Amino acid sequence: MANPEPNRMTATCPEDRMSGSVHLATDGCGVVILDQTQLPNREVYRELTELADMVEALQRLEVRGAPAIGIFAGYCMAVLGARAKADGAAELCRQLEADGAVLAAARPTAVNLSWAVRRMLDAANAALARADADGGADAVGSADTVREALVREAVAIHDEDIASCTAIAEAGLSLLTPGSGILTHCNAGPLATSKYGTALGPILLGAERGITFHVFADETRPLLQGARLTAWELARAGVDVTLICDNMAASLMAAGRVQAVLVGADRIAANGDVANKIGTLGVAVLAKHFGVPFYVCAPTSTFDLTCATGADIRIEGRDPEEIRSLWYAEPMAPAGVVRENPAFDVTPAELVCAIITERGILQPPFANLPDVLH
Amino acid sequence: MANPEPNRMTATCPEDRMSGSVHLATDGCGVVILDQTQLPNREVYRELTELADMVEALQRLEVRGAPAIGIFAGYCMAVLGARAKADGAAELCRQLEADGAVLAAARPTAVNLSWAVRRMLDAANAALARADADGGADAVGSADTVREALVREAVAIHDEDIASCTAIAEAGLSLLTPGSGILTHCNAGPLATSKYGTALGPILLGAERGITFHVFADETRPLLQGARLTAWELARAGVDVTLICDNMAASLMAAGRVQAVLVGADRIAANGDVANKIGTLGVAVLAKHFGVPFYVCAPTSTFDLTCATGADIRIEGRDPEEIRSLWYAEPMAPAGVVRENPAFDVTPAELVCAIITERGILQPPFANLPDVLH
Repeated sequence: MANPEPNRMTATCPEDRMSGSVHLATDGCGVVILDQTQLPNREVYRELTELADMVEALQRLEVRGAPAIGIFAGYCMAVLGARAKADGAAELCRQLEADGAVLAAARPTAVNLSWAVRRMLDAANAALARADADGGADAVGSADTVREALVREAVAIHDEDIASCTAIAEAGLSLLTPGSGILTHCNAGPLATSKYGTALGPILLGAERGITFHVFADETRPLLQGARLTAWELARAGVDVTLICDNMAASLMAAGRVQAVLVGADRIAANGDVANKIGTLGVAVLAKHFGVPFYVCAPTSTFDLTCATGADIRIEGRDPEEIRSLWYAEPMAPAGVVRENPAFDVTPAELVCAIITERGILQPPFANLPDVLH
Repeated sequence: MANPEPNRMTATCPEDRMSGSVHLATDGCGVVILDQTQLPNREVYRELTELADMVEALQRLEVRGAPAIGIFAGYCMAVLGARAKADGAAELCRQLEADGAVLAAARPTAVNLSWAVRRMLDAANAALARADADGGADAVGSADTVREALVREAVAIHDEDIASCTAIAEAGLSLLTPGSGILTHCNAGPLATSKYGTALGPILLGAERGITFHVFADETRPLLQGARLTAWELARAGVDVTLICDNMAASLMAAGRVQAVLVGADRIAANGDVANKIGTLGVAVLAKHFGVPFYVCAPTSTFDLTCATGADIRIEGRDPEEIRSLWYAEPMAPAGVVRENPAFDVTPAELVCAIITERGILQPPFANLPDVLH
C-alpha cells in the first residue's frame, strides 16, 4: 500500500545520478524515466511512484536494455521502500519482498531485472540484520536505515554500470581509427544502459574528446531501434550519423566506407557465440566478406557460461504481426504471410574479431573464456 | 486530341491477353492496369484512355517493372492510335510520333519504355509505308490499317515477354529441388513482367505443376516491394510464402532453411556484374557464406554491354526521406539523419552461380557474355 505522505529521501543520491534516461526523483519518492516508446518524436519523461506503473513501464518497453532495466529495478525498489508505510525495518523488508516478486515477474526473461531486485532485497535484509543486532528492528529509525541502504545500493548498481560502460568505451576507442566509418546495429547506447552505452560507448567517448567518426546506424527492422533510438542518441550527442536500411550495409562495405562494426550482445555463450538483435549475424557475415573488423561490446555479465555454444541460447520469438503492421499507417503485406519473428540471431564466434568488456578486450579463440571470466 | 467517339477495336487481341495486371480493354480503347501502388490492401484496376493519365500512371509507379512498362507502353500506343481523330494514316502517324515522345519522356531512364514506344512507331510507320505503296495513305481505311498494326505489335510485345518469362521459368525450375526453401528479394513476378515473372517464374510454374517450394520473401526496404507485391503475388497463387525482414535472411540460411536464392536484375554488365534492388548484394554475400546457390533470372534484354563492369552502372538515388517517413503513421527517426537512399546495388559476377535467361542458363565465368548474347 502506498504511503499518502511518503517519507522524504533519507540517503543522499549523488546529483550527477539524478538525470538521464533512468534516475531517482529529487525527493527520492519516484523513478523518472525517459519513455523510450515515444522516441524519436516526443521526449517524454515520466515519474513513476506506484508498483503497478513500474511493472507496466517494463512490460511496455518504456524502459528497455538489460543494464537500464537493472538500474531501473534498483531505483524502483528504493522508491517502494521510501513510500512504504511500515512499522519498523522487519515489516518494511517483508513488504519489499512482496513488491520485489511482483516487479521481477514483469519481464521474467530479463535476467538483469530479477538480479537487481534480488540484490536490492539482500541489501535491505542486511540492513535489517544490522538493525536487529542493534536491537531496534521494529523502530522507525531502523526502517530508515533500510531505506538508506536501498538508495545506496541502487546508486551502486547505477555507478557500477557507468564504470563498466566507461571501461568498455575506453577499450573500444583504442581499437578505432579516428575519422573512420563505423557501422552499428540495433541500440546499445545510453538509453539501454547508463552513460555511454556499450556499442555506442567508444563513439560517444570519442565525441567527448573531439575524436569523430562517421556512424552508419542500421534501422533494425522490425522494431526500428536503430532509427528510433540509436540515430536519436547519436544525433543528440552531435555525432555524424547516417541512418540506413538494414539491406544497405553491404553496398557501404563494398564501397569501402565502413572500417569497423560495433554491436552489443544479449547473451554470449561459453565458446564466444554471440546472441544479439536479429540481423547481427548478417552484418557479421558481410564484415568478414569485406574484411571489416566485427567487434562485440558487452559487459562480462552478458556471458552465460551455462550455454556451451550459441545453439544452447533460446531465441525469443515475437508477434509476427509486427513485421506486417507495426508503425505503419496500414498493413504492408497481405494477411497470412507473416509466420515467425525471431528477436535475435546467433553470430558464431569465428566471425567475432574481439569481445570488448569492462575487464578488457577478449581475443579469439574464445576457448578459454570460462577461465578468463572467473 | 482525344476522339469523342473512339474507333472500336479494329484488330483482334487474343482473349487470353485481355486480363492480368496490364492489358487492353475489350473495346481496344483503353489500357487496364492493376494499380500497384494500392497493393496489398486494395486490388484496384484502372482503365486509362488519355495520354496524360498514362504518363501519370508511369510516374506514380502504378505500373512498374521493366517488361511490364514495355507492355504497357505498347498498349498505350495502340489505344492512342484507336482514339486519335486523324484523317488518314499519315496524319495518324504524325500524331502518334508526338504522343509517343510525351509517353517515352514519362520515365526517361526506363529503357523498356522508350524501346517499346519506338517499336510501336516503327510498326505504325511500316503500315503507313504499305498503305502509301498501295496509294491510300490518306484514306480512313489505311488509318485503320495502322491501328491494326499497332494492336498486333502491342500483342507481339506482350507475347514475347510471356515466351521469355516462360523460358526463364522452365530453365530455373530445372535447377531447383522440389520441396526446398527459396529466398527471393524485391519483386520480379508477374506484376513486373507478364505471366510468371522472372525470379518468381520457376516458383509459379512449379506451382502450376504441383511442384511446391517454401518461399521466403525479403520485405525489401524501403519501398517494401517484397511485402506489398511478392508476398501478395505468391499468396494469391497459392504458394507457401513467408514474409521476412531483410535482416532475417542470414539466420534462415544458418539454419539450413534456404536451398537457393532467386533474384531478378535491373541491368547486367558485360562481365556478369548484376545491378538489382538494394540489398541484393547482401543476400549474395550471405548465400556464398552459407553455401547456398545464388541465381539471377533475367531476360537477355537486361544485359547492357556498354557497361564493361558493374562500376559503369549508374546507381539511381531516391529521396532519403523515404527511409524515415514512407508508409509510417509518423516519422520513425529524427530529422537530419537520412542522407542517401540508393535504389540498387551491384553484385559482382563472382557471387553469381548462374544467370537464367530465355536463351538458357549462363554459367560463370561470364567473360564470354558478349559472344553468347550476339
